This record gives sequence, C-alpha cells and structure tokens, in this order.
Amino acid sequence: MSKRKRNNSQTTLGTSPGTLTYVGADVNYATKITWVEYNNEEYKVCQIPHFSDLNQLELSKNKRHWFNIDGIHEPQVIATIGEIFNLHPLILEDIMNTEQKPKFESYEGNQLFFTFKMLNYNASTREIESEHLSLVLIDNCVLSFQEERTTDIFLPVQNRIVASAGKTRKNGVDYLIYCLIDLVVDNYFMCLDCLSDEIERLEEDIIQDAKPIAMRELYGLKREEMALRKSIYPLREMIATVLREDYPSITHYTSLYFRDVLDHTSQLIENIDSHRDLIASLMDLYLSQVSNKMNNIMKVLTVISVIFMPLTFVAGIYGMNFDNMPELHWKYSYPVVWIVMIVMVILMLIGFKRKGWL
Amino acid sequence: MSKRKRNNSQTTLGTSPGTLTYVGADVNYATKITWVEYNNEEYKVCQIPHFSDLNQLELSKNKRHWFNIDGIHEPQVIATIGEIFNLHPLILEDIMNTEQKPKFESYEGNQLFFTFKMLNYNASTREIESEHLSLVLIDNCVLSFQEERTTDIFLPVQNRIVASAGKTRKNGVDYLIYCLIDLVVDNYFMCLDCLSDEIERLEEDIIQDAKPIAMRELYGLKREEMALRKSIYPLREMIATVLREDYPSITHYTSLYFRDVLDHTSQLIENIDSHRDLIASLMDLYLSQVSNKMNNIMKVLTVISVIFMPLTFVAGIYGMNFDNMPELHWKYSYPVVWIVMIVMVILMLIGFKRKGWL
Amino acid sequence: MSKRKRNNSQTTLGTSPGTLTYVGADVNYATKITWVEYNNEEYKVCQIPHFSDLNQLELSKNKRHWFNIDGIHEPQVIATIGEIFNLHPLILEDIMNTEQKPKFESYEGNQLFFTFKMLNYNASTREIESEHLSLVLIDNCVLSFQEERTTDIFLPVQNRIVASAGKTRKNGVDYLIYCLIDLVVDNYFMCLDCLSDEIERLEEDIIQDAKPIAMRELYGLKREEMALRKSIYPLREMIATVLREDYPSITHYTSLYFRDVLDHTSQLIENIDSHRDLIASLMDLYLSQVSNKMNNIMKVLTVISVIFMPLTFVAGIYGMNFDNMPELHWKYSYPVVWIVMIVMVILMLIGFKRKGWL
Amino acid sequence: MSKRKRNNSQTTLGTSPGTLTYVGADVNYATKITWVEYNNEEYKVCQIPHFSDLNQLELSKNKRHWFNIDGIHEPQVIATIGEIFNLHPLILEDIMNTEQKPKFESYEGNQLFFTFKMLNYNASTREIESEHLSLVLIDNCVLSFQEERTTDIFLPVQNRIVASAGKTRKNGVDYLIYCLIDLVVDNYFMCLDCLSDEIERLEEDIIQDAKPIAMRELYGLKREEMALRKSIYPLREMIATVLREDYPSITHYTSLYFRDVLDHTSQLIENIDSHRDLIASLMDLYLSQVSNKMNNIMKVLTVISVIFMPLTFVAGIYGMNFDNMPELHWKYSYPVVWIVMIVMVILMLIGFKRKGWL
Amino acid sequence: MSKRKRNNSQTTLGTSPGTLTYVGADVNYATKITWVEYNNEEYKVCQIPHFSDLNQLELSKNKRHWFNIDGIHEPQVIATIGEIFNLHPLILEDIMNTEQKPKFESYEGNQLFFTFKMLNYNASTREIESEHLSLVLIDNCVLSFQEERTTDIFLPVQNRIVASAGKTRKNGVDYLIYCLIDLVVDNYFMCLDCLSDEIERLEEDIIQDAKPIAMRELYGLKREEMALRKSIYPLREMIATVLREDYPSITHYTSLYFRDVLDHTSQLIENIDSHRDLIASLMDLYLSQVSNKMNNIMKVLTVISVIFMPLTFVAGIYGMNFDNMPELHWKYSYPVVWIVMIVMVILMLIGFKRKGWL
Ligand SMILES: [Mg+2]
Ligand SMILES: [Mg+2]
Ligand SMILES: [Mg+2]
Ligand SMILES: [Mg+2]
Ligand SMILES: [Mg+2]
Ligand SMILES: [Mg+2]
Ligand SMILES: [Mg+2]
Ligand SMILES: [Mg+2]
Ligand SMILES: [Mg+2]
Ligand SMILES: [Mg+2]
Ligand SMILES: [Mg+2]
Ligand SMILES: [Mg+2]
Ligand SMILES: [Mg+2]
Ligand SMILES: [Mg+2]
Ligand SMILES: [Mg+2]
Ligand SMILES: [Mg+2]
Ligand SMILES: [Mg+2]
Ligand SMILES: [Mg+2]
Ligand SMILES: [Mg+2]
Ligand SMILES: [Mg+2]
Ligand SMILES: [Mg+2]
Ligand SMILES: [Mg+2]
Ligand SMILES: [Mg+2]
Ligand SMILES: [Mg+2]
Ligand SMILES: [Mg+2]
Ligand SMILES: [Mg+2]
Ligand SMILES: [Mg+2]
Ligand SMILES: [Mg+2]
Ligand SMILES: [Mg+2]
Ligand SMILES: [Mg+2]
Ligand SMILES: [Mg+2]
Repeated sequence: MSKRKRNNSQTTLGTSPGTLTYVGADVNYATKITWVEYNNEEYKVCQIPHFSDLNQLELSKNKRHWFNIDGIHEPQVIATIGEIFNLHPLILEDIMNTEQKPKFESYEGNQLFFTFKMLNYNASTREIESEHLSLVLIDNCVLSFQEERTTDIFLPVQNRIVASAGKTRKNGVDYLIYCLIDLVVDNYFMCLDCLSDEIERLEEDIIQDAKPIAMRELYGLKREEMALRKSIYPLREMIATVLREDYPSITHYTSLYFRDVLDHTSQLIENIDSHRDLIASLMDLYLSQVSNKMNNIMKVLTVISVIFMPLTFVAGIYGMNFDNMPELHWKYSYPVVWIVMIVMVILMLIGFKRKGWL
Repeated sequence: MSKRKRNNSQTTLGTSPGTLTYVGADVNYATKITWVEYNNEEYKVCQIPHFSDLNQLELSKNKRHWFNIDGIHEPQVIATIGEIFNLHPLILEDIMNTEQKPKFESYEGNQLFFTFKMLNYNASTREIESEHLSLVLIDNCVLSFQEERTTDIFLPVQNRIVASAGKTRKNGVDYLIYCLIDLVVDNYFMCLDCLSDEIERLEEDIIQDAKPIAMRELYGLKREEMALRKSIYPLREMIATVLREDYPSITHYTSLYFRDVLDHTSQLIENIDSHRDLIASLMDLYLSQVSNKMNNIMKVLTVISVIFMPLTFVAGIYGMNFDNMPELHWKYSYPVVWIVMIVMVILMLIGFKRKGWL
Repeated sequence: MSKRKRNNSQTTLGTSPGTLTYVGADVNYATKITWVEYNNEEYKVCQIPHFSDLNQLELSKNKRHWFNIDGIHEPQVIATIGEIFNLHPLILEDIMNTEQKPKFESYEGNQLFFTFKMLNYNASTREIESEHLSLVLIDNCVLSFQEERTTDIFLPVQNRIVASAGKTRKNGVDYLIYCLIDLVVDNYFMCLDCLSDEIERLEEDIIQDAKPIAMRELYGLKREEMALRKSIYPLREMIATVLREDYPSITHYTSLYFRDVLDHTSQLIENIDSHRDLIASLMDLYLSQVSNKMNNIMKVLTVISVIFMPLTFVAGIYGMNFDNMPELHWKYSYPVVWIVMIVMVILMLIGFKRKGWL
Repeated sequence: MSKRKRNNSQTTLGTSPGTLTYVGADVNYATKITWVEYNNEEYKVCQIPHFSDLNQLELSKNKRHWFNIDGIHEPQVIATIGEIFNLHPLILEDIMNTEQKPKFESYEGNQLFFTFKMLNYNASTREIESEHLSLVLIDNCVLSFQEERTTDIFLPVQNRIVASAGKTRKNGVDYLIYCLIDLVVDNYFMCLDCLSDEIERLEEDIIQDAKPIAMRELYGLKREEMALRKSIYPLREMIATVLREDYPSITHYTSLYFRDVLDHTSQLIENIDSHRDLIASLMDLYLSQVSNKMNNIMKVLTVISVIFMPLTFVAGIYGMNFDNMPELHWKYSYPVVWIVMIVMVILMLIGFKRKGWL
Repeated sequence: MSKRKRNNSQTTLGTSPGTLTYVGADVNYATKITWVEYNNEEYKVCQIPHFSDLNQLELSKNKRHWFNIDGIHEPQVIATIGEIFNLHPLILEDIMNTEQKPKFESYEGNQLFFTFKMLNYNASTREIESEHLSLVLIDNCVLSFQEERTTDIFLPVQNRIVASAGKTRKNGVDYLIYCLIDLVVDNYFMCLDCLSDEIERLEEDIIQDAKPIAMRELYGLKREEMALRKSIYPLREMIATVLREDYPSITHYTSLYFRDVLDHTSQLIENIDSHRDLIASLMDLYLSQVSNKMNNIMKVLTVISVIFMPLTFVAGIYGMNFDNMPELHWKYSYPVVWIVMIVMVILMLIGFKRKGWL
C-alpha cells in the first residue's frame, strides 16, 4: 500500500468532535462537482462551476439526482455541502478522514452513509493504491465523494446512464448506490488476481531456487494482503448491515442485488484468506529449501574433509624427519603409498554414495 | 486444482450487473439438453434438438420435469432458457460464472437456486479437477446445468429413474434435487480418500527418508486441500440455508434427507480439517528430519576433524627442520610416535562412543 | 487408530440413498441378539436364536425391552430389524456405516437415534481401536447395535440390571440409554489417561535426550489424538442436541444425568485440547534440543580447529626448506617453539572457557 | 501442577452413576466439621465431634448456618451428609471427584452447587498445587467442602464473621457464598503474579544468555499455565451461569458482587492469555538466540580456517623436496614469505571486519 | 509498558470486598479537585481547597457539574467522595485499583461507572505509560478520577467549555462523558502511530541487516503491543455495553457520538491486530535472514576448504622423504605442480560459480 504523506495527526488532538480536518496526501486540485439528473425518460449531465452554486439549484422531485464530488481536501467545500444537504457533522468528518475504515451508518433514519476504499494495483511499483470514497443517500439524491485523481472512478456508471434507458435509469437512487459499490467490488477481484499472479510467480521462483530476495518479497506480499484485508473485511460488514436493517429507501428489488454484492465480498474474503495461507506455506517452503541448501553445503564440506584429512595425514607421516624410518628407504614405498591413498579415496566415495551424499 | 485458461476478467469491468459472460475454459461443444419427464407410473427421456425448441414444449402438470443442460458456455442459450423459465438475471449470471463459489439463493420465494462444484481426482496429474454445476427448482421443474465434459455427471440418477419406480420416481422434484446434490457429495468422499492416500504415502516417504521433494509435494497437497475447502465449506452453508428457512417446495419428508447430506458435508469438513492438521504436522516432521540429517553430517565432519587434526599436527612437528631436535635421532622414536597416535585415536573413539556420536 | 480394511467405497457411488452397505472390516461372526426384558419387580435375559424370530415376539407394555444386537455386518439382519421396528432407512444406513461420525437425530419425533464410537487403547500396538455403536429409543424399547468383537461392551449395564433392583431397573428406558452412553464416556477417560502416560514418557525422553525417534513418536501421538478428537467433539454435540430439544421420551429426572455426561464430554474435550497443546510444545522442545546438540557439535569442531590450525601452521613454517632460515640453527629453537605452542593452547582454552564453550 | 497419586480409575468403570469413589491423593485425616451459626446480632462457632451428630442438630430458621467440612476422602461421611441434607447423588459424586473441573449446577431449583479449585504456588517446588472445593447452598444453609490440608482455606471469612457485625454478618448466605468464591479468586491473582515473576526472570535469563535449561523451564511454565487455565476458564463459565439464570436464593444485592467477581475472572483469563503469548514469544526469542550463537560459532570457525588454510598451504609449498626449487636458495625468501603471509592475514582481517564478522 | 512499583497485593488477601487499597505507584501529591459548573449561558471553574469542603457545596439543578479529581492514592479522600455522592463500594474499589481493566457498570440504574486507561508513548524509554482513569455519571454530575501526573489530561475539554458556548456547553453531561472518552481514544491513535513507526524502522533494519538486537526489539514491541491490546480490547466492550442497554441518562443525540467512538475503537483493534501480524512476520523474516547469513558463512568455509585442502595435500605429497621419488628429481616438476594447482583452483572456482556460491 503506498504510503502517502500523512498530515500530523497530533494537531487534531483535543479538537471538538466534527471538526473538519483533511488527513490525506496534499493535493492542489480544485474540487470538481458533476451533477447527473435522470429518470427513465431523460437525463442531464453538467458540471457545477463553483461549489457555492449548489445552493441555488432546484431539484425536481420526479427525477433522480447524483452529485459526484471529485476532491475531499477542502474543508470549506465539504462544510458547505454539509450545510446545504443538512448532513450530520460525523458524516462530514468521515468523508474527509482518508484513514477511516469502510463502514455504513444511518443518521436520523433518512441519511444513509457509506464509506469505503477504491483499490488499484500499480504494476510498476507492485503496490496497491487506495482511494477514500463516500456515498450519501438522501431522498432522491446520491452524493458521491472521491479523493481527486487523474481519473473519475465512477465514469462507467455515468456512461451507462448516458448510453441507454436500461436498468440503471429505470430504477431508483438505491440501485445507483448499488451500481457504484458493485463497480468498486468488481475492481477488487482484479487486484486479487494481480496478487494471485505475484504469488504464483514467487511460488515458481522458490521451487526452482530459494534466493534470499524471495523471503523479502513474501513479506511485501503479506503486507499488501494485510492492507487489502483491512479494506475488504469491513466492506462485507458494511453491506451486511444495510441488509440486516430494513431501510425504506432500499427497495426489495435492489436488496436482491445488494445480497449479490455481499456474496461477492464473501468470495473476496475467502480468496484473501487463502492467499494468506499460501503465503504462510510459501514461507515454510522457502525455509525448508534454505535448510536443504545448508545440508548440501555441509555435505560438500564434509566429503572434502573426510577425503583429504586422512590423505594429508599420511603425507605428513612420511614428511617426518626421524633418522630411523625404514619405510623411507624401501624401493616401492612411494607407489605403495599412492595405491593405499587411492584405495582409501575409492572406499570413502563408495561410502558416501551409499549414504546418498553424492 | 487444474488451472484452466481464464478469460480476461478485465473486459467485464464496468458492465451492467446481469450481463452474461462465460469466464471458464474455452470449449467447442454445442449445448446438449436432455428432458426427463416422469412420475410414479411412467417416464420419458428425450433430447431437445435445439435450445429454441424448448419454447414449444408443453409441460404436463401431473408429471415432474427435469431439464439437464450440458454446457454453459453459450450466453445465447442461457439467456433463452432464462427467458422461457422467467429466471432472475442474477441466476443466469451465476450459472455462467465458473468462478462463483457454492451458494443457495431464493428469488421471489419460488425460484430456488443452487450452485456448487463437482470435483474429480485426476490420478495422472495428481490434481483435483472442478466442474461448475447449477440447479434451479421452479414448481414441478428442475433445471440442471453442467460445464460440458466427455461424461454426464448426473447419469446415475437418470438411470435410477429409468430403472425402477423406486423412491426417486415416487417423490417430487425436491427429492430429485436432493439426489443430484447427494451424488456430488458422495463423490467428495472419494476425492478426500485419494488425498488421504497421498498423505499416507508421503508420511511413509518422510519417515523413511526426508528427501527435499517431499516438502514440495506437501506444499502441493496443501494447495489441493485448500481448493477442496473452498468448494466444501460454502456447500455446507448452502444446505444449511435451505434447511433454516422453511420453503414450501421442500417437503418435510425430503428435508430429513437434506439433513443427512448436511451431516455428510460436516464430516467432509472435519476430514479436510484433519488433513490440514496432518499436512502441518508432516511439515514439522520433515523439518525435524532435515535437522537430524544435518546433525549427522556435522558429527561425521567433527569426528574426522577431531581425529586427524591432532595427528597431522604431531606429524607436522616431526617434519620440522630444526638442527637440534633430539627425538629425531632416538632409535624408537618413529614406532613410539605411531603408538602414541594410535592410542590417541582409540581414546577419541571411546569418547565419541560415549557421547553417542558413533 | 488401527486402520482396518475398508471395503471399496467406490462401489456404493450412485446407489439410491438408504441402500444398506457394510463398509467396516470383514468379519465372519453371525449376529447375536440378546433380549433383556425388565421392570422394577422382575427381569428376563434371553438370546434370540435367529433374527427372524424377532418378528414373533410379544412385547409386554408394562416392561422395558432392550435388544442388544452384536454385529452390524449383515445387511439382511439390519433390514429385517428395520422393518419390524419400522425404522427410517437413514437410521439403518448409519447403523451399518462404520465411518459415520457420532450424531443424534430424531425421526418422526418418536424414534431417537444415537450413534457414536467405543474407543479402546491397545497397549501392545499403542493404538486406539474404535468400534461403531448405535442406539435407538422407541416407546419402551431400546435397540443397541455394536460391531461384533470378542467382548460385549454393554455387559456391565446388563449385569447391573441382573444384580439388583436399583436405579437402572427402577427407571425407564431413557435412563438405560443414559447408562449405555455413560459407560462409553467413562471409557474415554481411560483412553485419555493412556495417552497422557505416553506423553509424559515422551516428555521425559525428550528432556533427557532428544533422539530422532521422539519426533516420530510425537507425530504418532498427534495422529491418535486427532482420531480421538474426531470421536469426542461430535459426541458432545450429540448430547447437547438431546438436551436442547425437550423430547417427551426423556424425563426431567434423566435429563439431569444427561447434563452430567455432557459435562464429562466437555472435560474430555478440554483434556484433548491440552494434549494437543502439550504435543505442540514438546515438538518445539524437541527441536530446540536438536539445535542445542548442533551447537555443541559445532563447538567441539570449532575448538579443535582453533587450537590445531595455528599449531599445524607453526610446524609447517619450520618444515620449510629455505636455505636461509636462521631459527633452524639456533640451539633452543625447538623447545622455544614447544613453549610458544603450549602457551597458545592455554590462552585459547582460557578464551573458550570465558565464552562458555567448554 | 503437582501430580498426586491418582487411584486407579479403572476400578470405577461400569459402576452405577452416583457411586461414591474418592480419586484424590491418599490421606489419613479424619473429616473435620465446623458449624458457624450467625446473624446480624450474634454468632456461634463450634466443631461437630462426629459426622453422625449432624443428624441431631436443630437449625434455627432466623439464623444462617455454615457447615465447613474439611476432608472429602471418606465416602461414608459424604453419603451421610448427603442423606441429612437430601442432596442429589450427582452432587455427592462431584464433591468427592477431585478431577472434576469447576462447574455450577442447580438441582431441583433449590440446591445450588458450586465446585472449583483452590490454587497455591509452592515456592520451593515451583509448582502450583490445586485443592478441590465444593459449595452447596440450600435455604439458609451453606455447606463447604475442602480436601483436608494443614490449613483451613476459608478461615479469613470465618474470622470476619467473628470479628464484627459487618457486611458478611448482615447479609444472607448468598453473600457468604460470594465471600468464599471471592477469597479463592483473589488467591488466583497471587498465583498469576508468581508466574509473571517467573516469566520475567526467564526473560532476563534468555536475553542475557540463552542456556538450554531455559527452554525446559519455558516448557515447565507452559505446563503450569495450562493447568491454571484449566481451573480458571470454567470458573468464569460457572459464575456467568449463576448470573444468567435469576435464582431466587441469590438477591439482587449479592448479584452485583457476583458481577464483580465475574469481571475479576475475566481479568484472570486475559492475564493467562497474555502469559501464554509471552511464553510463546520467549520460545521464539530463545530459538533466535540459539541461531545467533550458532552463527557466532561458525564465524569463529570460518575466520580461523580462512586465515590458516592458505598460510599452511604456503608453508607446505616450501616444505616440498623438489631438487629444482630456485626460491629455496634465494637469500631473502624466508623473510619475504613471512611478509607475504602477514599481509595476507591483514587483508583477510580487513575483509572480515567489513563483513561484520569480527 | 512502564513497570511502576506495585504494592504487595498479598496484604489485601482475605479483606472484606470494598476495602479501599491503593495498589499503584507511590506518590506524594495531595489530591487536587477542580469543579466546573456550566450550562449554555455561563460557566465557572474553581478549585476545591480541601476534599472535606465538597460536603458544603450546593449544586444548582439547572447547571451541569464536573468534578475532576486528580489523585486516587488517598483512600480517605475517595471514601469521603463516595459518601457524599452515595457511590457503591465496588465503584470506589475500582477507582483506586490501578490494575483494574477497562469496564462499564451500571449500579442501581442511575450510577453509570466507566473505568479505562490513558496511554502515553514515552519517546525516551520507548515505552507506553498507562494512567488509570474513572468516570462516574450521576444525575447532572460527572466525576472524573485520574492518577495525578504533572499534567491534567482532561484540560483540552475544560478549555473547550471555557472557550465557547459550543456543542460541549450546549449538551448535557452525557456529552461531556463522551468528550472525555473521545479525548482518550484519539490519544490511542497517536500511541499506535508511534508503534507503527517503530515497526517500520525495525523492518528496514531487518531487511538491511538482521542484527541479533532486532529480535530483542521485536520482542519488546510485542510486549508493548500486548499491553496496548489489554487496554483497548475491553474499552470497545465498555462502549458497546453502554450502547446495548438503553440508559435514560444517555440521550439519543449523544449515543450517535458514542457509536462513532465505538467505531474508532474497532479501528484501533484492527490496527493492533495488524501490528501483531506484522511483528510475527518480521520475526519470520528475521529468522530467515539469520539462516541466509549462516548459509553464506558456510559457503565461505566450504569454498576455502575445498580449494586449500587438495592443494595442501599435493604439497604434503612432495614434502615426503622417500628415497625413491622420481618426480622430485625431474627438472620441471616444481613449475608443473604449480600449474596443476592453479588449474585445479580455476576449475573449482568455475564449479562454485555455477553453483551460485560466489
Ligand atoms: Mg506497502
Ligand atoms: Mg481515524
Ligand atoms: Mg459485480
Ligand atoms: Mg485487519
Ligand atoms: Mg453474483
Ligand atoms: Mg510460521
Ligand atoms: Mg488450483
Ligand atoms: Mg465472481
Ligand atoms: Mg450420500
Ligand atoms: Mg477458504
Ligand atoms: Mg448419513
Ligand atoms: Mg509450520
Ligand atoms: Mg490412525
Ligand atoms: Mg461417511
Ligand atoms: Mg460417568
Ligand atoms: Mg477434527
Ligand atoms: Mg459429573
Ligand atoms: Mg509449530
Ligand atoms: Mg516452528
Ligand atoms: Mg507440573
Ligand atoms: Mg472426571
Ligand atoms: Mg476480590
Ligand atoms: Mg484447557
Ligand atoms: Mg472489581
Ligand atoms: Mg512457535
Ligand atoms: Mg512492558
Ligand atoms: Mg485487579
Ligand atoms: Mg475522536
Ligand atoms: Mg489480552
Ligand atoms: Mg468517526
Ligand atoms: Mg513464529
């Protein structure tokens, strides 16, 4: 997970609850607000030039309204939107708190608040990048908040609304909420697939040759997998909470779709759990390979010592300078010593062969 | 688990929910549809030549109907069947999604949907192959969907219907559903038996000689066992959900049989859990064997060093060229040195014997 | 756990549910049926000569009846008994399935079915042998089924009925069921005591000297303990299920005794769990002992190398044949070299002593 | 946990439930019975000379009665007390069964039965000794049973009754029960403190020098901690059960105190759990220290070998006896060889220094 | 966690429940009592000179009252406050018991009691220091108790009351309770951030060079993390209990804020759990690095032995003193021997290169 610059959280200590503070990475973008107004018959997409213009909008009752806010780093913008839509201060705090984990909360029964993470696998850094998202459902309005990036994550859904008068246009804003969540969950499967590929690559590396770098890569994968888990575990809880309580703003029709996305988060979690298991097993495999390597190194050392120590000793014996060493004067002593030594080596090699060391 | 070619899941990202996409292995078969019509008195088995013919069938109310669809790779076929039987779009999506984990879902109360996996142990590749299956129960109809293979998995049940007017013929389509699930669950026991045999084989190998290949085989077994768990854990959940809610289309008579199959899945899970335990213990056993081997290697090295280093030193001493070394000129120096060295070796061997190193 | 010959489970695949197949070890005994008829005043024990005679028995209403069937390998016998007592086909299947785990099931509310395992520690093979048992409670009748062995497990209870008009005679057949289960549970404590003794023996062995055989014995113990757990965990579930539902055939008086046996199974499970913990800790202890041994071996090797390598080098120096080596010609060179070497050895020994290597 | 002589449990197999058998350590004491009669105004403490005298006591209704029975090894005494107070046979069995784990049971609604363990840390043997305790609450009577020891565990509570007309005297026998349990729970904190001290001592030992004895001590601590857990886990369950059901004999006033003791058992369990964690971490720490030691030993061996093997080789070269070796006859060969060797050693030492091996 | 001097808990054994004993570190401060009286319109902050003055205070009904008591080491003070506010003896016991874990308890329905810990990361000792806090809510009064330190923890909240007539002034004492808890929870995030930084520092250290000190630092971190968990796990339970029961003194408005702080404690726990995971993985990483180091050391030893042992042997051969060794007299023997030895070394180096040992 990329470590973006965190603003010093110490400064927020002791402030009143609901105080708006942006704790994510520093950005210079101005907040971009897109207004999508639609029903089954027609639709309109337009940019709100300045956030203060929101105040003058008249929202027609028989249309659905989606305000897509790109950028959560300006406390003033978030505060103004909060005032206009009459949002609870704790909602505003969580929208800006990029370290908030996924959760669902219902304020006063008619403000449904969802917050979760978009995950993106960065192929070049081999890291998963996370983006803080929030959704608010009030009456026939949806507010979506994203940390500004170069791309608009929710564009595919906007395109579906523009493209045809299909299910997304026909159904209410609760279905729109579902579509936005589903889009993010589908993305998680792609991230997990990337991690799976990394694990398989490492698996082959380790089976072929357990290089020390492998352990560090396994450790890195474990960190990525832990970061993923931190986003996905509470996401399931979030959707399960929506389904447990029976909110009037979520129709029975849409709740079937929410159950489907709940099932998908369960599958994500199972996949993560098996990744975790695999990584642990790969660590064990790696360590056993290292032990085997050590055994092989020691075998080489022992074989060479067992062969040459006795030979060197024999040579040492006949290098002694005693006056009275009859063997030194025999005619065939030297070739006999060579033969004895060669026989010794052959016998030792046979012994090692039997032990399976060669 | 065999890794079949997965179509790029990236292409499905951002499409509308319920869009039908086949993500399994590529196949060229045409979908085969078998219609089994039966009651206690009579039965009829026939092939539907083309899926569009399904539309013109008249289904008699006092008979049970079973449509066995071999092949889930043609979106058009699945879509047409969905239209004819009025199936929920999420059912159709899950029928074609070969990566969907086992689950049970009731749509609109009268469409009961089951999806799960057939597992088959391939003795030659030592891998467990999985096939995606789905069952739909509507009124007096059962639809069964299988990924086309060379064999029809459900043939034994069809044969029981053909063979005699026994329990399967006498009871309703809920009992047919049970028979199909039971067939698959019975198969799981065979897969687990194969894994058990592999574990026992490895156990003997490791106890006799802990070769490095054993650890890799253990790792492979662990992967197979994890894949099995991924199919079987949610299967129990699937059957438990059927029993928890009291669906009118499942009679009390059949629910007793569902409880039996639930109990069998519990046993499967316990067996898998003990496999998991065994594999972990075997890894520990393997590692301890490797450590013992290392100890033995080091003992050999140490024994040879302890014996020959002092001897070589003694020989080195009397190989020195000092003018004034009286021992060199004594008459019995040479045999005395030999005797001293032999005594040293004997003493060291006794010492090693006492330490248990020989 | 002894591995008895398992009949090929493949042959049963695809057969209709309720098909009776014996999957245990092959035996040649004929089934033995004992009829115990008793109430507080009187009792009668007799053997039923042939299972077909069961059909002609008249069971007096104001007596309790216990049919103890020794042998579950003859499908015909079990099927006949099933017909006479009108037992559900799934009961018959489970009676014969020696691989069925312990469970309790109520069929039609008036047939209470219990199945579980008798465990026996075989001192000579150091293995726990298991025997498949089943109990059925219908009206004022108890049927008990055991895999035939040389001994009748339930004899002590029969003897209590014969011996005195005590609690067993006074109370109903539900109390008889309790007595039979209690007998089996008491036996488990003995099996666990045997395992405890094995663990303590191994503990002493490992603390004294960690021989490689110890790890294999620990692995064997782990297998036994896993087998025990597989019998005892579902047994607690079985008794808890009986107590959860309030069956009319189990009186309040007897349910107090069932709670007692439930408490005993909880204690069994706790004991097994601590065995598991102990075995894992012993494995760790063993591995640490192996590491310590290795350290000791390496210390010996290092000490000997550190002492003799410099000495041999010194001797090598004065073994060189340079023309111009003044030391060779000094008078006291040789004894000086000896003194230098002895001082070196003493210094090195002091160094090793300080490091704690000697 | 001290292993006291266990009577052969085999002999109790097959006996009728409720048969009284003492399974604890053999003792020769006669059972001592103390009768404490008290209310807010007055109190009386007296010894019952012989257990049969209990029968003739008249218990005044407006006083509370506490019978403290020291000794549970005489079946006859327990049976007589059971008859007098009309106790359920299963209560009597559990009073005498020193291997019974802590539990709470209500018989017939008006006999509340508690059984649990007193734990005492024996500083000399470094073992935790356990004593089996039972409490029965009937009407305005409390019976307390303890395995006889040299000391009376419950004396502090008796002293409080004697000392002043405080809370213990003012409140009913349910508060007395609470006081007795609280006394025992307070004792557990002291045992845990002793274990904590042992762990800290070992921690320092291991950090300073990982001696092999440390691992065995850790293993011993783990055993002690497992024994503690076996007594304390079910104790919490026992108190929670009392609070869950709303017994009329436990007043609302006293139940607040029971909640307090429940909270204390939770803290005990958390402390035990962190001990468990600490012991596991210390084992890991120990093993890593052993590995580091090994690395250090190997470094010494490798350094000495890398330095002296080349030197010895050089000396060997010039010890060869070839006729034609020009270097042997040069004037400064010998000092040059020395200089070369010294330079080699210095270079190697620098290399090792850079690698951090020195 | 800093180990402050603990008073001997043995002395409290056997005393009556509710006996006030201070078990924390010895301090000499006199207890400081601050009285904050406020409502939306006005506020007053004053010091109570002596605790006995509390008795003469008249508390106006339409104002909120906060008594902040700095110092819990004087039993007399706590007892007097208990009498004045009519607190339950168990509340007083827990206020003074610095080893009490966090908990919430409601006495008589109108005394809500909270106890928990302030945590502070001491950068110099690298330890987390804990301070015991308690809050009591009665009618329109809050009592807060802190172990005296140089600083007043709750000062920021007092400053908010002084600074403006904002949310804290407008709302009731239940909101004040929330503010005090929130302040402490916010502090935990800072402690966890410090631990995170330590973990990251260690991670880099271990990846670069696995020094033995790293393992001891990991062990220290694990201890700190365990101590944190012991404070934070029960804190979540404490807040969840408040929300579960529906106390009249906690308004619906404030309970939304309590849910927020509950969510924050969940996040804390998830962070701690991932720290735990990370520390365990770092231990594995460290151990694998140590193994790799060992392999590298052994490679050096083996390479040097494999190269020099054969060379030394060759030199030894031609150092023998046999009369009849023709090679010694050949003209080019000496350079040939050198060439042979150099070729041997080159071949061996190529071999090691291929094995990847160089
Ligand atoms: Mg990262
Ligand atoms: Mg946060
Ligand atoms: Mg989706
Ligand atoms: Mg987590
Ligand atoms: Mg789906
Ligand atoms: Mg591990
Ligand atoms: Mg696979
Ligand atoms: Mg999917
Ligand atoms: Mg079956
Ligand atoms: Mg899984
Ligand atoms: Mg069955
Ligand atoms: Mg492992
Ligand atoms: Mg076995
Ligand atoms: Mg079975
Ligand atoms: Mg019993
Ligand atoms: Mg199991
Ligand atoms: Mg009992
Ligand atoms: Mg382990
Ligand atoms: Mg391990
Ligand atoms: Mg012990
Ligand atoms: Mg017992
Ligand atoms: Mg207490
Ligand atoms: Mg336990
Ligand atoms: Mg307390
Ligand atoms: Mg461990
Ligand atoms: Mg600490
Ligand atoms: Mg305490
Ligand atoms: Mg906060
Ligand atoms: Mg804890
Ligand atoms: Mg929040
Ligand atoms: Mg570990």
